[in-house]
Amino acid sequence: MLLLIPGPVSTRPAVKAAMTRDIAPWDDEFRVYYAGLRARLPAMAGVSAETHAALPLQGCGHFITEAAIRSFIAPGGKILIPMTGAYAERMFRLTREAGRVPVSLEVPEGQPVAPEAVAAALATDSAIGHVGLVQSETGSGVVHDPDAVGAMVGAAGRRMIVDAVSAFGALPLDLARRAEVDAAVFTSNKCLEGMPGMGFAIARIDRLEACAGHAGSWSFDLSDLHAHAQRAPGTSRFTPPAQVLAALGVALDLFDAEGGQPARLARYQANSRTLYDGMLGLGLSPYLSRDVQGPIVMNIHAPADPNWDLLKFVELLKARGVVISNFYNTPLPSFRIGCIGAITPADMHFAVRAIGQALDRLGICQRRAA
Amino acid sequence: MLLLIPGPVSTRPAVKAAMTRDIAPWDDEFRVYYAGLRARLPAMAGVSAETHAALPLQGCGHFITEAAIRSFIAPGGKILIPMTGAYAERMFRLTREAGRVPVSLEVPEGQPVAPEAVAAALATDSAIGHVGLVQSETGSGVVHDPDAVGAMVGAAGRRMIVDAVSAFGALPLDLARRAEVDAAVFTSNKCLEGMPGMGFAIARIDRLEACAGHAGSWSFDLSDLHAHAQRAPGTSRFTPPAQVLAALGVALDLFDAEGGQPARLARYQANSRTLYDGMLGLGLSPYLSRDVQGPIVMNIHAPADPNWDLLKFVELLKARGVVISNFYNTPLPSFRIGCIGAITPADMHFAVRAIGQALDRLGICQRRAA
Repeated sequence: MLLLIPGPVSTRPAVKAAMTRDIAPWDDEFRVYYAGLRARLPAMAGVSAETHAALPLQGCGHFITEAAIRSFIAPGGKILIPMTGAYAERMFRLTREAGRVPVSLEVPEGQPVAPEAVAAALATDSAIGHVGLVQSETGSGVVHDPDAVGAMVGAAGRRMIVDAVSAFGALPLDLARRAEVDAAVFTSNKCLEGMPGMGFAIARIDRLEACAGHAGSWSFDLSDLHAHAQRAPGTSRFTPPAQVLAALGVALDLFDAEGGQPARLARYQANSRTLYDGMLGLGLSPYLSRDVQGPIVMNIHAPADPNWDLLKFVELLKARGVVISNFYNTPLPSFRIGCIGAITPADMHFAVRAIGQALDRLGICQRRAA
Repeated sequence: MLLLIPGPVSTRPAVKAAMTRDIAPWDDEFRVYYAGLRARLPAMAGVSAETHAALPLQGCGHFITEAAIRSFIAPGGKILIPMTGAYAERMFRLTREAGRVPVSLEVPEGQPVAPEAVAAALATDSAIGHVGLVQSETGSGVVHDPDAVGAMVGAAGRRMIVDAVSAFGALPLDLARRAEVDAAVFTSNKCLEGMPGMGFAIARIDRLEACAGHAGSWSFDLSDLHAHAQRAPGTSRFTPPAQVLAALGVALDLFDAEGGQPARLARYQANSRTLYDGMLGLGLSPYLSRDVQGPIVMNIHAPADPNWDLLKFVELLKARGVVISNFYNTPLPSFRIGCIGAITPADMHFAVRAIGQALDRLGICQRRAA
């Protein structure tokens, strides 16, 4: 099965195989392993363990996102969130329910966040202390630029939190240039191609120390997590899914062997190009124009055909070994295909053929859809 | 390796093998599987899906405990926590940092919580709305009785949250008799012998509905989790560690095949007896007398010998294939052995022999320790 949902993603056999072991997380050997795993992460964001801590948190991307919001924004504090799509909406809700004040910034559909719009919004409300940016918006497939937005945030003397869940490992992120970023958050799955179950923040140590006491939740307190890691590197405050951590080490070895972030991005871009060309070849219309289409996920307009049926289409694809999302992610009917995970352009060619066959079986004349 | 830390516990090969598959959590087949998995849990606590919901939450036991505290106790609300040991202290801290007010009830060391003491404490403070009870206190090994304590809580018109993390599946829990229990929480590992990574609450549906809006955290909002499960049974709000869920299904099949909770308890009791006898045979003193020693975890007094060294002892045991905790859990020096997981009395005999050999290697004359 090709998982193109996208996320959880397809992973390599060696990654999955690392899960089949009982592990004592506080054992000396595992402590060394775990400390080493954490030590590998800051460099992937262009920073060192001197200035930034890699903080692992059990659970999903939403959990580490809420943890970053709670840890760096005091209760009642304001954060500007460019409304890039479904994941910005989720950050908005996480913020509001955590007792912080989200302020929305409208973003034209299918467009990258305009840095000037962020600057203008910050200029009108001095109470906004943070900006929360989704780097790769799974809802739309658009990639947003933490560098360009961050420059405005920094110039305005504000702070930033980057949701890099669908981006980290594939899209560049250089936190050394982005002093205004308190934390970038991501998970063990997605572009790192590990197994799901752990979130991570790469966070400024000075800010973790300055913001201690903000979180209002022991579980989600990144400052406490950092203090614990200082006292006992390689140990967890609470029982971690150690198998997921073991798998991530293998995934990072494969990441390095592939050539790191540039190589991973190049493979995903090739996947994405293959899919884009393939969709056009089938007479289908991607939701985004090529210039704004990111390499992570692609929405494709549903064929304008009375025979279109998303759930039947998903079932037909699954019967051919391709799993895609079985719900709508865009205002207009579309289907969504992920370009990430342990997959290559050959897999995307395979998926394109399967899509063509599924449309045939639905009785959809594809050329009409163009 | 025998994991006697205890938790994560040793699991069976078939449980671990279920982890080696990429899974699309929103796929129709997985939805059916997941809904079925959830449906199996309430009966294990003596209740039906009519009155109680089984709510899965990504992460560790602390997370589901915090989620229950947040979801059922309004901000500023008071909860009485009998201080049974390390895990009661953790519940206390989770409560305080979540902005609720924990009230401690001292419990004589090594004794079960006296129901009358709970009743007396509730009588003195009408503002206390809840009692939080750790059913099996890993810190001490003492088992506490949610039935006896719950009767007092119910009679006083208060509510209860049961931390059943180290208990569920092995110790009896009949929520049908305990209308005052809002939720009992546990995890996929421990006595269920699944893999770590998911927490669960079995919670009263009427209370979930009545308490909607309390949580102050979208991630930890059990009322929202329930509402989501009502709308879309078998789906997750956020990406779950689906491999852990797949493994739990296998673990529950093995649980049923073994004969359910009574059989599991009997095996753990046999493990515990074997260990207790073995420790006495080596001239060592368990921390607790037999009448209060629970079947989950046992602390054993460190030998009163100048050659005693916990970390060397742990290393010597590990070299013999037995992994135990490498930190102290009790006020007086002791070592801790778990009796739970996919292990039998034969494994405990093996562990006893390894302990004897390790003490020999440390140069400790064991009879002196008695």
